[in-house]
Amino acid sequence: MNTNLEKLRELMRAKGVDAVIIPGTDPHQSEYVSDYWKFRDWVSGFTGSNGTAVVTLENASLWTDSRYFLQAEIELEGSGFELQKVEYRGELQVIMQWLAREIHEDDTLAVDGRLFSLMEANRLEQLCGENGFLFATDFYPADEIWKDRPARPMTAAFIHAEEYAGEDVKSKLSRTMEKVEQSGADSILITALDEIAWLLNLRGSDVDFTPVLVAYFYMSNNDRVLFIDGDKVDKEVERYLKDYNVRVRDYDDIERFLYKRNVNDSIMLDPNKVSDTLGQALECDKVYGASPVEALKGIKNEVQIEGFRRAMERDGAALVRLFKWIEETAPTGTINEIDVWERGKQERAKSDLYRGDSFEMICGYRAHGAIVHYSATPESASTLHGEGLLLVDSGAQYLDGTTDITRTVTLGNPTAQEKHDFTLVLKGHLALSRAKFPVGTTGAHLDAFARMPLWQEAMTYGHGTGHGLGHFLSCHEGPHSIRTNLSPVALELGMVTSNEPGLYKTGEYGIRTENILLVVEGPKTEDFGNFLEFETLTLFPYDPRLIDVNMLTAEEIKQVNDYHAMVLERLTPYLNEEEQAWLNEKCKHFS
Amino acid sequence: MNTNLEKLRELMRAKGVDAVIIPGTDPHQSEYVSDYWKFRDWVSGFTGSNGTAVVTLENASLWTDSRYFLQAEIELEGSGFELQKVEYRGELQVIMQWLAREIHEDDTLAVDGRLFSLMEANRLEQLCGENGFLFATDFYPADEIWKDRPARPMTAAFIHAEEYAGEDVKSKLSRTMEKVEQSGADSILITALDEIAWLLNLRGSDVDFTPVLVAYFYMSNNDRVLFIDGDKVDKEVERYLKDYNVRVRDYDDIERFLYKRNVNDSIMLDPNKVSDTLGQALECDKVYGASPVEALKGIKNEVQIEGFRRAMERDGAALVRLFKWIEETAPTGTINEIDVWERGKQERAKSDLYRGDSFEMICGYRAHGAIVHYSATPESASTLHGEGLLLVDSGAQYLDGTTDITRTVTLGNPTAQEKHDFTLVLKGHLALSRAKFPVGTTGAHLDAFARMPLWQEAMTYGHGTGHGLGHFLSCHEGPHSIRTNLSPVALELGMVTSNEPGLYKTGEYGIRTENILLVVEGPKTEDFGNFLEFETLTLFPYDPRLIDVNMLTAEEIKQVNDYHAMVLERLTPYLNEEEQAWLNEKCKHFS
Repeated sequence: MNTNLEKLRELMRAKGVDAVIIPGTDPHQSEYVSDYWKFRDWVSGFTGSNGTAVVTLENASLWTDSRYFLQAEIELEGSGFELQKVEYRGELQVIMQWLAREIHEDDTLAVDGRLFSLMEANRLEQLCGENGFLFATDFYPADEIWKDRPARPMTAAFIHAEEYAGEDVKSKLSRTMEKVEQSGADSILITALDEIAWLLNLRGSDVDFTPVLVAYFYMSNNDRVLFIDGDKVDKEVERYLKDYNVRVRDYDDIERFLYKRNVNDSIMLDPNKVSDTLGQALECDKVYGASPVEALKGIKNEVQIEGFRRAMERDGAALVRLFKWIEETAPTGTINEIDVWERGKQERAKSDLYRGDSFEMICGYRAHGAIVHYSATPESASTLHGEGLLLVDSGAQYLDGTTDITRTVTLGNPTAQEKHDFTLVLKGHLALSRAKFPVGTTGAHLDAFARMPLWQEAMTYGHGTGHGLGHFLSCHEGPHSIRTNLSPVALELGMVTSNEPGLYKTGEYGIRTENILLVVEGPKTEDFGNFLEFETLTLFPYDPRLIDVNMLTAEEIKQVNDYHAMVLERLTPYLNEEEQAWLNEKCKHFS
Repeated sequence: MNTNLEKLRELMRAKGVDAVIIPGTDPHQSEYVSDYWKFRDWVSGFTGSNGTAVVTLENASLWTDSRYFLQAEIELEGSGFELQKVEYRGELQVIMQWLAREIHEDDTLAVDGRLFSLMEANRLEQLCGENGFLFATDFYPADEIWKDRPARPMTAAFIHAEEYAGEDVKSKLSRTMEKVEQSGADSILITALDEIAWLLNLRGSDVDFTPVLVAYFYMSNNDRVLFIDGDKVDKEVERYLKDYNVRVRDYDDIERFLYKRNVNDSIMLDPNKVSDTLGQALECDKVYGASPVEALKGIKNEVQIEGFRRAMERDGAALVRLFKWIEETAPTGTINEIDVWERGKQERAKSDLYRGDSFEMICGYRAHGAIVHYSATPESASTLHGEGLLLVDSGAQYLDGTTDITRTVTLGNPTAQEKHDFTLVLKGHLALSRAKFPVGTTGAHLDAFARMPLWQEAMTYGHGTGHGLGHFLSCHEGPHSIRTNLSPVALELGMVTSNEPGLYKTGEYGIRTENILLVVEGPKTEDFGNFLEFETLTLFPYDPRLIDVNMLTAEEIKQVNDYHAMVLERLTPYLNEEEQAWLNEKCKHFS
């Protein structure tokens, strides 16, 4: 029996709540959240990064996506939660359809408004209205019944030096205020943790994988306030903030502070990021718009770009050592998926600038590779052998850049089908990489280039093709993306994006090939305008034993050869002789 | 001196109007309009299909797009109108910026509300508000000062037989009402002429190139009214309409009829199509939405599709005769661009089912080919010779289908550059044609496939890649398109679209290659869903002398060979021996 769930229902009865939705996020709409906010995990037992629990007095369900079906089935066993599979977004609507069968007109759906963006809460309210439910956003069960709740993360803030960041805080603050004023507002509330970290060149370790601090930031022309637990800010950081006229207030003061804003103020908010609770606290004029910090942060400067290039070299060298070790050790049957993960960390940690992984490594051997976001556990971890496909998606946080790379390799005796499928995925990956495109082109225009070789054989993959990447920040960031979603955000000079088509054959294997690309200047013309193209930042060979060269055009063969030549040239200085010999073989020249 | 413009200004002064916008459309938002509505032409002298005149008491400007720059320069000479070049949409905003410099706060901008959609008028009102102008929609200068105005078109309505239409009117009306009711409305007003023609299987010749009747249609569950000039409806058509419970009222009665709607009615309107005047006349509840008729009409049935296939065969055979004649005659220096146009009509007219061209042929020799919508005049028409590129974009209305095809051919001695450019365009055209794509894919996802070979060499074209095509109706129709615009309309089974990448080198030549494609079923899979693909409907070879086979992949060569084999097989039965021999040479097998 799930006693945590029963405690929640007890509270619901006491408060007259008939249904509650518990998301897996925090008040900052973070992708990775600290243990303090894992109330959904506590109630349901499910620990995946994406999942929404819904509890009524009689029933409970948990919605998650295909990445987590297997994991959820195991973790929800006996929890009283039924697994509900969502394939696409529009989750709130699906949840509401379920609720419409479970609760009645005039029943109350309650949520913790701090965990829903203004946009989401608005949508929920609308759906409740359509169904005749009452809707409340002031239900805080975690505060009341979670007795052994972990402490709020309390790591020290540290300055991200300008030699890595490439732009000083003064410039960032003033460029942001310029955008705020253009929007017609005179102040801004920023709640996304990576935006605050970027804006203040400040980092911390409050959250796994992303070097951020839990905080809020408010800025007007005559006031700048960082809301953060005071213990995180030492004398040096305090002085540093003071230099930029940023004062520090307690994290918990934010609501009170906003509530007291002058009604004549006009404050800019990103309704997809600011929580309903904070949005509602504001009685002044609100200007809704996409966060200008997200847009500024998405364009990398020359120092960041040079940092990325160096980080990719060290990262590539670490991967050479990792994959060489895998290849040599797998045939002995003595290592498993978790060992690969551990070894990867060790190899990357050899760089002075390494500050941890940028996400939990996905290491999927054979059938595990087909589980898109597979996370090995001691119970599930497969032992590797001298054959079959191994998919490794991993990345690191270095002071000079973040990495994110996926390679699929054969551990021996690749089949014709494996080579065929790998090469199809590679063809899509290469097509996107070599694209040149006019200024104004969006990710939606390019996404299908990575898919078409698969589409031609009636296959596809269920995830996006490309996401932005932070610089010593989040491994997923906007505002751009390369997806089928018809987002109007154009790809701009200085943006970085992943390029990661894949193919997943349930029960057999998964294939994904991912590089990070930088948007750089292409040809400029008088008649046809200016073009952009990609520079590949990631440095590691595609497994030559999996390439069916007969499936490649001359153009594609040249592209692979050129890339392998660059990888060899740039990684060699970081390797010993044995490693160089290994890499040399991998960077095979096809003809 | 432009006396028409002066008459307009006199009226403006009399009515207290400071500025007027005169669009080139009619009350049905038609692309091609009858002479009766060519008031803009009368005032400005400009006759292009896209152009908006704006007149103040002191100045006058005319906005048109790049297709018409040359023509407008000539036609506006001495008219008192200044040519304003618009490259993209957003024209109203640009016009308003111009007006902001020409007129003052509290000045009045007036328009004829019948010529603006509800959406446009709404946008204009908003822009006027931002600029402090007053806005009026009841200024009807054409009715007052255009003394020699042509009569309203008065051609006979005729029934489009079900053997061509493939669906009877009863079914169309009931499928439409189903959609209306789904939208929450209980009636619908349809103002787009091609929608009315499709819905009632009725055609006419009121407008050039599109076999429609000028009319409005209103439908509820217990009333169906066609507003049309009575003289167009003979006894047979009247009986036919009666069979479907459609009553006929005078065209001019529409406003009065709408004004008298019961306020409890709920009427569906497409705000992009219904005029501001009619929309404002309605005092009942309005449900705004994209016209359901447009969506239904966009999906062709089996009879229409089979008709398209036959029409394309006859059209292809006519083009064989046309291009054979051009090729044989051009070296003599005795024919010009207009002769090609005339000959094309003659060749197509040999089909019993031919009912005119579907648009004005674009026949551009050498530099004229670079003018995207070039229209030859006796003064401008170039004489053809035995060399250089000739671009011919043409189409016809047949009872069993509409055609629209562009071919670019060499009249002799093609240069390496011409072949290179032609082959680049062809590569994009082929890439789009052979695409397979999952259900849900939109034109915006596929558009760049037609552009990428050009993009790779820093070139592009300034028009869309694909538009829908009516069936014995408009040569441009929605709801789908293949463009960079991020339209959410997915490509669906039974839709037809053009595939027409191009390349235009000002002063040198233009290249465009256009086929009509039908969306057909592709592979169905359990793991990856269902796919769609294209069947090429258009039948005519790509000029083999312009193909640089070294630039094609093996896949592309096979695609050209397969297409040419199909063209040869399907057109041969329509040709005499000499023509067969000519086609045989054109449908060359590449290796």
